[in-house]
Amino acid sequence: MPYIAKTITSPHNDEVKALARLVQYSRDRRKEGVMVLEGIHLADACLLAGGALPRVYLNEAAAGKEEVGDLLARLPDGCVVATLPESVMAKVTGLASAGELLALSPRPQPDTPPAQAPRVLLEDIQDPGNLGTILRSAAAAGVYDVFLSKGCVDVFSPKVLRAGMGAHFALRIHEHADLTAELGRFSGRKLVTHLEGSSSLYGHDLSGAVAFVFGNEGAGVSARLLAQADARIRIPMPGHAESLNVAMAATVCLFERVRQLETIASSGQG
Amino acid sequence: MPYIAKTITSPHNDEVKALARLVQYSRDRRKEGVMVLEGIHLADACLLAGGALPRVYLNEAAAGKEEVGDLLARLPDGCVVATLPESVMAKVTGLASAGELLALSPRPQPDTPPAQAPRVLLEDIQDPGNLGTILRSAAAAGVYDVFLSKGCVDVFSPKVLRAGMGAHFALRIHEHADLTAELGRFSGRKLVTHLEGSSSLYGHDLSGAVAFVFGNEGAGVSARLLAQADARIRIPMPGHAESLNVAMAATVCLFERVRQLETIASSGQG
Repeated sequence: MPYIAKTITSPHNDEVKALARLVQYSRDRRKEGVMVLEGIHLADACLLAGGALPRVYLNEAAAGKEEVGDLLARLPDGCVVATLPESVMAKVTGLASAGELLALSPRPQPDTPPAQAPRVLLEDIQDPGNLGTILRSAAAAGVYDVFLSKGCVDVFSPKVLRAGMGAHFALRIHEHADLTAELGRFSGRKLVTHLEGSSSLYGHDLSGAVAFVFGNEGAGVSARLLAQADARIRIPMPGHAESLNVAMAATVCLFERVRQLETIASSGQG
Repeated sequence: MPYIAKTITSPHNDEVKALARLVQYSRDRRKEGVMVLEGIHLADACLLAGGALPRVYLNEAAAGKEEVGDLLARLPDGCVVATLPESVMAKVTGLASAGELLALSPRPQPDTPPAQAPRVLLEDIQDPGNLGTILRSAAAAGVYDVFLSKGCVDVFSPKVLRAGMGAHFALRIHEHADLTAELGRFSGRKLVTHLEGSSSLYGHDLSGAVAFVFGNEGAGVSARLLAQADARIRIPMPGHAESLNVAMAATVCLFERVRQLETIASSGQG
């Protein structure tokens, strides 16, 4: 057993209290430089991507499960695995039914992407589900660099990690980015989606170096970033709905890029 | 004041108890043939689409709001508007903070769509957020007929209505549909998304009469419906993610149809 096993029984244990704060408060997570992974799937995705899991917390009931055993067997030496009673785990997660597993992992510090790499810039995205979905779409579409303004919800919060379904570990996530400076540095096409955009998404070449900018759920993209855009693009909506939410809009844009790349490849020009 | 105003103060009032059951249980909603709309936005969307709101329940605090007054002024004669204390409203909604407004509306009974109308068939979709998002995408993309298998979560549940953001009122929603029979009757192209589909979404003509079939979040589309499909299509994913969820997949498919229609229109062939 390469990891260090321990048992915690008291809900008043200092480590338990600190863990509960990390689950709840982005400030604590940022201060400690960690993210909290909930569930075997996320912990596994983190390990597979080469991430570290220095601390793992297990619900007693989960400790005997085969898939948990498989995960623990792959932990590097020196990891600490603490087993907690269900009641304590429930208190930590703030949910009536305790999760099986929590794990702490260092927040990644990604390198600057290659100058021509396609990218997504997110300004003040507030909804964890939306943010996780955008990450998932970006990872699926092969756009690996995501820049987030300081006003975004914590991208490494448990909710965003859950919605991202492991996408976090496929991406280079650049937190607290100065989006104005990032756009200024970027030499590719800068596209902002806008309900009153002047040109259709489908009229743009998205196959090369492109930065997609998506804005806050209510306010949209700020005037400052809009002014830096090469184009304000609109997703045509022939139907009656008011609009797509930002996650759906991002998915449509990112997969229109996939389509263009596929079309180029299949026509032999790629 | 064309509507009938009343005040309810007791949480033990029979009407309050019945309302709480309608909020919570799909069985009760189906038995009564109603849906429960939460919030002014949904109630407004329902009215604008020609729907009826025979019963409206207002949180006391909301009764004085201008936008609520505007809504009430447009209610047809004979509607009953009951004002409830915040504590009673909170009990009804099952949430710590009471919503402003609940309204009951009859579940629509849509006509059979035109034979060539594009459509979405949903098999056993379980997540209310996914279902609402699919409806929103369909409405935005101008695909107005949605057929749901008996195994889908209640499409008129408060959660699905919330996620649909008013899309329900732009669509013809066919509940408890026999999807096998519907596909059998349909003479257009029948497309099923499948992770191991043999052809790319982007190689298909989606501009005409087309039925998109999307399956359960875990199990996918059943073998029976797969056997009826003209093609099993795959959304190409050049990236690392395992898959898109069903709502994102539906959004990508529906907007690929929008793109094709736009391209035809702009090239003068449409």
